[in-house]
Amino acid sequence: MATINKNYDKLAAGYLFPEIGKRRDAFLKSNPHLKLGDIMKLGVGDTSEPLTHTIIKGLHLGVDKLASKDTYTGYGTEQGDKRLRQALADRYGKRGVKLEFEEIFVSDGAKPDSANIQSIFSKDSVVAVQDPAYPVYVDSNVIAGRTKAFVNGKYEGLVYMPCTVDKGFFPDLPNKKVDLIYLCSPNNPTGAVATKDQLRVFIDYARLTQAVIIFDAAYSAYISDPELPRSIYEVEGAKECAIEISSFSKDAGFTGVRLGWTVVPKTIITAGEDPNKLNSLWNRRQTTMFNGASNIVQEGGLAAMLEIGQRECQGVVDYYMENARIIKWTLEKMGFKVFGGLNAPYLWVKLPNGMKSWEFFDKLLSEAHVLCTPGVGFGPSGEGYVRFSAFGHREDIEKAAKSIRDNLRL
Amino acid sequence: MATINKNYDKLAAGYLFPEIGKRRDAFLKSNPHLKLGDIMKLGVGDTSEPLTHTIIKGLHLGVDKLASKDTYTGYGTEQGDKRLRQALADRYGKRGVKLEFEEIFVSDGAKPDSANIQSIFSKDSVVAVQDPAYPVYVDSNVIAGRTKAFVNGKYEGLVYMPCTVDKGFFPDLPNKKVDLIYLCSPNNPTGAVATKDQLRVFIDYARLTQAVIIFDAAYSAYISDPELPRSIYEVEGAKECAIEISSFSKDAGFTGVRLGWTVVPKTIITAGEDPNKLNSLWNRRQTTMFNGASNIVQEGGLAAMLEIGQRECQGVVDYYMENARIIKWTLEKMGFKVFGGLNAPYLWVKLPNGMKSWEFFDKLLSEAHVLCTPGVGFGPSGEGYVRFSAFGHREDIEKAAKSIRDNLRL
Repeated sequence: MATINKNYDKLAAGYLFPEIGKRRDAFLKSNPHLKLGDIMKLGVGDTSEPLTHTIIKGLHLGVDKLASKDTYTGYGTEQGDKRLRQALADRYGKRGVKLEFEEIFVSDGAKPDSANIQSIFSKDSVVAVQDPAYPVYVDSNVIAGRTKAFVNGKYEGLVYMPCTVDKGFFPDLPNKKVDLIYLCSPNNPTGAVATKDQLRVFIDYARLTQAVIIFDAAYSAYISDPELPRSIYEVEGAKECAIEISSFSKDAGFTGVRLGWTVVPKTIITAGEDPNKLNSLWNRRQTTMFNGASNIVQEGGLAAMLEIGQRECQGVVDYYMENARIIKWTLEKMGFKVFGGLNAPYLWVKLPNGMKSWEFFDKLLSEAHVLCTPGVGFGPSGEGYVRFSAFGHREDIEKAAKSIRDNLRL
Repeated sequence: MATINKNYDKLAAGYLFPEIGKRRDAFLKSNPHLKLGDIMKLGVGDTSEPLTHTIIKGLHLGVDKLASKDTYTGYGTEQGDKRLRQALADRYGKRGVKLEFEEIFVSDGAKPDSANIQSIFSKDSVVAVQDPAYPVYVDSNVIAGRTKAFVNGKYEGLVYMPCTVDKGFFPDLPNKKVDLIYLCSPNNPTGAVATKDQLRVFIDYARLTQAVIIFDAAYSAYISDPELPRSIYEVEGAKECAIEISSFSKDAGFTGVRLGWTVVPKTIITAGEDPNKLNSLWNRRQTTMFNGASNIVQEGGLAAMLEIGQRECQGVVDYYMENARIIKWTLEKMGFKVFGGLNAPYLWVKLPNGMKSWEFFDKLLSEAHVLCTPGVGFGPSGEGYVRFSAFGHREDIEKAAKSIRDNLRL
């Protein structure tokens, strides 16, 4: 008599983006003179620019290798191509972070890793998340049974760490003892970037209480300020308490190509008799439940890690950051208070006159035909904000900015 | 105070293949006149032949699309490219199996799907596995906490269904009431293929008791006998009780490229208030914890699904099956009793004189310098057997066969 995992029933209705799609479709239906192409997207964090020359070459090489008996490869190691793990370790090294390649696990992306990492921890772990936060941290822990009911926009049993304007959108330490702490910097959705001092407070807390920090650095390539850490391991002590998850999605443009990695230092200390086990546990998880990232895709990743590949990726990042400046400038000119968008591809916009997130979403859609992402979709502290994304073709960004300027009635 | 998922501690030491590698390395160390290349692999189920022309073209197309602004794609749907889902549904249709494309979820392979599918079921589900079986079914349920200690080669709490020679290596119904039943046909490791009548017994049982069958069809392309079902859905009633998992690995050669799919019919019935939920549950699991298979790889999969692609894949299957015949013929000539290898790429070899699996493994390695896979590594009923695999280049297979003929002392 098969029964289902009842934790799924606890998940709050619909993921944010399907709801956005639903409202867009309803708007189009009641405005038949408009077509889908008339709706301008400034919401979703999806890359739009083609892959760079060097990466394309690397991917073609990956394909060609499979066409010949002498270079064909079947199953790779689940942890990833050693060359790629070493290239990543070397890049960390350039920023003063020493990692062995065995501490880096290549995967098919930061989203699956963010979702699966909780599975190596005890079921009764108490979890703290930033509020607002990328929904996957929360949903994966709901499914694993670490939360109770969803009441007033929050899951009981989950510890929310509000990220509010007065604290620069970085949280205070959790207000009760927790076991796992999710941090994301540059932050999705707020675009805030944690300073070394801010991270140090959490690292000290985690080491003192033997908590583990799960640090999502998927947007680290967008940090241009040299004072800001691109990796949590740039702060002393992090290798004893932090896992870092990152991605080729947002700088190499691999959102659809799928490649990421997770760092699990051998030196992380957890509670219990076997305090140095996380690295081997994640290794066991990956070898049992995963079968490695695609060999073709890893060849593309290796190309992206070349010096010329890195320069080209920086060019793409710069392109998106110019988009961010255009949106920021447009909105600020209109009187909006705009956060983020300096070392992150996201802009976090405070709505005027106590306007609610979904209210503004509907208004922006109907008046300017532009899509944004309602802040409340990322957690209760996101209410009264919307997220704009800098991804998109320049001409579309400029068109959307113009439409907002010309048509949005404030 | 972070603590680990203690279920990992229950996992029996080492996965089978690392142990094989260890013994091979120890053998090489004590025989310094031999080098790695002198050891012939007839063990691991890893493809060796290059990808076909049509697939290579498809993969290059997938890469080229990403090089241009007009054809670049970012995030795809987590469920897979609709064209690929439809192509798979159409292929099922040709065998008389009606499926909607929404019932087919494209993924990065059968291994992750086999490991993750258990997560949509209740934690206290009682699980039945074939003995011997592909280790992932067992290990993923151990990690999820559905078993107790590992005693005498078996996990307490798991229901083992012995697959023995007298029953043609297909199990009887479980000897107690179970909720989830893993079946694999063509079977890894035994090479046995379930008949429609054999499957019907399990389908009737599952419908009667509201159990769910998880049917692994990753090797279905190796079935040439038209009487044998390639999909469990060729047997009536299966769409009410069975999930099917399959793969591009073993016919298209995608072991390292990574592409598979899982069918979760909307008509499956489970116990409880919400008996028709499995399809939407797996959808929710995939949209939350997964981010879609690589767009490049899916383009390769689409090419493989073309008529010419399918013909080319059949050519590769035929090639491996000729390998199977060579190994079978060699071993039978020497007096071994050989099972499988007719509609499956695996041969399941009974060892003479009560010899144990690892004993023969060591003997074959030291005398003939050939690697096989010890049957006991797949479960206690595999003791006294070894698995040979038909994957490999023809010249290597012939060389290994000759070495066995010339050097193995029986």
